[in-house]
Amino acid sequence: MSDFIQNAWYMAAWVCEVPDGGFLARRLLDRPWLLFRNPDDSWAMIEDRCPHRFVPLSRGKFADGRVTCGYHGLAFDGSGQCVNNRFGEVPKGASVAKCRVVERHGGLWFWAGDPGLADADAIPDFAFIDAGPPIERAQYVMGVNYQLIADNLLDLSHAEFLHVESFGTNGSLFSHGRQSVVQDASGAIWNKWDMTSASPPGWAAPMLDDGDRIDQALHIRWHAPASLALFIEIRRAGTAEPLVPPMANPHILTPETPGSTHYFFTHEPGPEAEAMARRVFLDEDEPMITAQAGAMDEADFWDMHPLILASDKAAILARRRLMQMHKAEMR
Amino acid sequence: MSDFIQNAWYMAAWVCEVPDGGFLARRLLDRPWLLFRNPDDSWAMIEDRCPHRFVPLSRGKFADGRVTCGYHGLAFDGSGQCVNNRFGEVPKGASVAKCRVVERHGGLWFWAGDPGLADADAIPDFAFIDAGPPIERAQYVMGVNYQLIADNLLDLSHAEFLHVESFGTNGSLFSHGRQSVVQDASGAIWNKWDMTSASPPGWAAPMLDDGDRIDQALHIRWHAPASLALFIEIRRAGTAEPLVPPMANPHILTPETPGSTHYFFTHEPGPEAEAMARRVFLDEDEPMITAQAGAMDEADFWDMHPLILASDKAAILARRRLMQMHKAEMR
Amino acid sequence: MSDFIQNAWYMAAWVCEVPDGGFLARRLLDRPWLLFRNPDDSWAMIEDRCPHRFVPLSRGKFADGRVTCGYHGLAFDGSGQCVNNRFGEVPKGASVAKCRVVERHGGLWFWAGDPGLADADAIPDFAFIDAGPPIERAQYVMGVNYQLIADNLLDLSHAEFLHVESFGTNGSLFSHGRQSVVQDASGAIWNKWDMTSASPPGWAAPMLDDGDRIDQALHIRWHAPASLALFIEIRRAGTAEPLVPPMANPHILTPETPGSTHYFFTHEPGPEAEAMARRVFLDEDEPMITAQAGAMDEADFWDMHPLILASDKAAILARRRLMQMHKAEMR
Repeated sequence: MSDFIQNAWYMAAWVCEVPDGGFLARRLLDRPWLLFRNPDDSWAMIEDRCPHRFVPLSRGKFADGRVTCGYHGLAFDGSGQCVNNRFGEVPKGASVAKCRVVERHGGLWFWAGDPGLADADAIPDFAFIDAGPPIERAQYVMGVNYQLIADNLLDLSHAEFLHVESFGTNGSLFSHGRQSVVQDASGAIWNKWDMTSASPPGWAAPMLDDGDRIDQALHIRWHAPASLALFIEIRRAGTAEPLVPPMANPHILTPETPGSTHYFFTHEPGPEAEAMARRVFLDEDEPMITAQAGAMDEADFWDMHPLILASDKAAILARRRLMQMHKAEMR
Repeated sequence: MSDFIQNAWYMAAWVCEVPDGGFLARRLLDRPWLLFRNPDDSWAMIEDRCPHRFVPLSRGKFADGRVTCGYHGLAFDGSGQCVNNRFGEVPKGASVAKCRVVERHGGLWFWAGDPGLADADAIPDFAFIDAGPPIERAQYVMGVNYQLIADNLLDLSHAEFLHVESFGTNGSLFSHGRQSVVQDASGAIWNKWDMTSASPPGWAAPMLDDGDRIDQALHIRWHAPASLALFIEIRRAGTAEPLVPPMANPHILTPETPGSTHYFFTHEPGPEAEAMARRVFLDEDEPMITAQAGAMDEADFWDMHPLILASDKAAILARRRLMQMHKAEMR
Repeated sequence: MSDFIQNAWYMAAWVCEVPDGGFLARRLLDRPWLLFRNPDDSWAMIEDRCPHRFVPLSRGKFADGRVTCGYHGLAFDGSGQCVNNRFGEVPKGASVAKCRVVERHGGLWFWAGDPGLADADAIPDFAFIDAGPPIERAQYVMGVNYQLIADNLLDLSHAEFLHVESFGTNGSLFSHGRQSVVQDASGAIWNKWDMTSASPPGWAAPMLDDGDRIDQALHIRWHAPASLALFIEIRRAGTAEPLVPPMANPHILTPETPGSTHYFFTHEPGPEAEAMARRVFLDEDEPMITAQAGAMDEADFWDMHPLILASDKAAILARRRLMQMHKAEMR
């Protein structure tokens, strides 16, 4: 077993990633898993490792809700039980691990820990994905530990340095930014930056007259272990009139390995919007976070005695929460 | 020293791999070795590492049964003794390790352990290589531990899944296969699959009429640590008449490192036959065994509590034998 | 902290490597550093790692003797102190490590240990670099531990094997070489090979008549930890008349990591001379030393019980000196 928190909901995949009539093989929490539909159309998530010789079942064949190992032919169904052995009786107790899976708003959420503790109501609310304008769902793997990405998102002040070219706020965070960190009833931690009567970001300038000021909200929401949502609103200063429709974006992180993370996001439809979204991740965030991971060289974050700034408050709270959850599981 | 069994015969190379008048440098049992002929034409196998600054002697020059280090010029002969120092006296006791080497049926067999225990009569019998039709000798390195390859060979039932496209038996192993595991006087362990009155494999169909049945023997022989031979016979059902001449193939495995293995085999003469032989190794066996090794991630096989099937009997016996040999050497 | 000796002068870079108005980022003694000029033109060397989130400061921007982190904007000056935080007060005590730097003969020398022990007079004397004919300064990284390169240089007998094609001495080291190992007042260890009335090396033959003999001096000087200088003189035998002007070359080694070394050298001006110099390093020395490092596989040199030859005397003295210095620092 890995060091990851087990008693928590993580997102495994977007539903649209699982091929029709087939399976998706994916490493999650440093273990190999298979996602597929049972014959009754419910979802199954079983370990992608044959208990006989440990080869990935994903090298075998899938049909009728069963995957048959490509090495010696043991077959397993969505419950994880071995249901066929071509050379004789099904060995007693032969099975692979399985997880509970719940579909929500186009995502497949799984619970790797104690099934008795799995409460589907605790899955973070991403209803805005379906409620908002049409979007496309996307995913990629960033080659760093998930906590470093969560740190990045929980301290949006980095936008003024790292995202100057994309969604930087033209220095208004420095001059007009007010930060508040709050916790809501769902247990989420929010880091809110609010700018009042500030000069507009570059991308908004064409919609305004010279000298017009704006009010801007840059809010990020974090659910443990690492499912985040970013909410952006921009209004003419002192009005309730949105300059553009409010934006809400999922930034859902699921550990692939200790050093890599599945990053689930959405973007406006079309290849241009996708390219722009990926550019921010790949050209701006990832090189910096990768350099950070390289400098840390697998050392523990706290053992390195990081300098703590006021702007780190939300990230520090989130890290503390994770430590508490981890300790609780170690008991 | 490595963890490999030392008091055993392994094959180092085919004779034809050693260049005329030169040497072959090869990593075996995780140590670097040189193979060459002494001036009297006998074989020498000495450590490929100068005792002075540890550089490979194979970076130097070979002449007259001596290799001269390319860094500072110490020379060594086939006994492993230092026999020349250009800058002064030959340092007392300067030498490199050596192994006894015996040539058999085109192969060079070595004994890395206690020389007093080396009995050339214990070299596994591969006389069929010379006795059969003309073949070519070949070799390649598979990037996994040798025991995983031996497991693969000792359980031929995998042919029905992994080798469907090449020498699969059309399901007759399931329907007509009888497995027997025996030990012979030479200490070899045999895993024998015999199919009686079965439907023919695809490659044999053109030689038969519709509905003809065959008897087939698929026998594999294992000598510790990992020298295997595969024997295939196919006859018209109920007759002694071979449909094709009986086939015998060496599958001789020698560890290169803990994670890679020299795989010595033969094939019918010519590039097409060679390509076909390599295809089975490279496209069918190796990807599966490599995936297995990746999933095991250097964990011990037994620590992973593998599910044991009846078809694993021979492989399990072989693994037990190796553990006994290993324990005996640790005493 | 690394295992490298800290209380010693190492060369960090040639001055000409630092861009005008910018900085040079370089890993030295297994830590990341930045070299740049302070506004008063003095040199600064500070750690290339922000104390906040550990990203390299070199991913940020440099101006007016300050480097501003590209992630969240903390700025540091040449003293290592944090001097700006765009989001609020400068955090008390926020700083990065720094080293004293001294410029000498076109090189920047640093002291990573106790500043109270740093005596600029102890920087090895490389005045000959400026005093001699015009040269160009060059540098490259060799992928091995610095001690293996120092061993190589301290035992020039290897020229007869490894540098036969370049500056080998035609066997005269064997037949006419006399080795002396001495220590001078500066603490340097010298290994001197002197050949009297020997046949000339190949490159000198065109300047001589058939049968002419030469006297040759091949002297190498080592200052701890690994700053070496090579001095070559060649005269008509029995005369004081130099056949070519005496040559002096720096071979200054500074660890980058435990397994790689910055190699600072000079060469005659022009691309051809540079290519020739690099050829000796890249084609002759480096493959052999890399093979040595591979064979040693991070084992300790002494734990491998190397065979010691008379020609190793200087290298052994140097290794002992380093061990004494290391022990002194561990106290």
